[in-house]
Amino acid sequence: MSANCIFCKIVKNEIPAFKLLETPKILAFLDIQPLSRGHALVIPKTHGAKLHDIPDDELSEMLPVAKKLATALGVTDYNILQNNGRIAHQFVDHVHVHMIPKPNETEGLGVKWPMQDTDMDKLKALHEELKSKIEN
Amino acid sequence: MSANCIFCKIVKNEIPAFKLLETPKILAFLDIQPLSRGHALVIPKTHGAKLHDIPDDELSEMLPVAKKLATALGVTDYNILQNNGRIAHQFVDHVHVHMIPKPNETEGLGVKWPMQDTDMDKLKALHEELKSKIEN
Repeated sequence: MSANCIFCKIVKNEIPAFKLLETPKILAFLDIQPLSRGHALVIPKTHGAKLHDIPDDELSEMLPVAKKLATALGVTDYNILQNNGRIAHQFVDHVHVHMIPKPNETEGLGVKWPMQDTDMDKLKALHEELKSKIEN
Repeated sequence: MSANCIFCKIVKNEIPAFKLLETPKILAFLDIQPLSRGHALVIPKTHGAKLHDIPDDELSEMLPVAKKLATALGVTDYNILQNNGRIAHQFVDHVHVHMIPKPNETEGLGVKWPMQDTDMDKLKALHEELKSKIEN
């Protein structure tokens, strides 16, 4: 827990929230500045700014809970988004997975996709580098 | 498995891919049209178009694997994104979680955030509706 973290305060019931689902490891609640109707957040109870700071057992529950929220809402088009770092559009430094319904072009998440050309040599070199790091 | 699905073909080794990590339930590999260096995908082995089509035990492995990829790459700023539906920017109809490093403003995911005003009455009504659906 972090004393000044707004999401930790929600976990501790120090500030109110529209809570939807809670387990010993995670909490889900409505985003009060939604991009679309039903925009919700799933957070781990462990305080950590970024995905790589959170224990696997908490991360494991997050997508099944996001699925439960999407199913309860009855949405078929939606984005699951988790941002790490200011430059990546993160503004609360406690990991949160957004479940954002996409009902039409204007509401919900807007995505810009600056795709790069395929460079097989670079990919091959990166693949070798990463594989050895993952295996070790 | 779906015979015409490009990601199912990668799982079955019918087409090549820069595979990074595999378990009985999921597979991770490099995106060959990356938004940034290290852009990788994590897919469930079950064929399903959308998050809500995938069994929880496969979903559970996806974020811990995305964390492993980010850690191996050594990135601190990145987006985790999973799109459901054409309108939500999904173009392969087999669930995939993107791990997209955000090294600078121009590379990586671009996010547009059309935030709506907070409407406490609407949120309260939605909260009641969803809570009863989630509990039942």
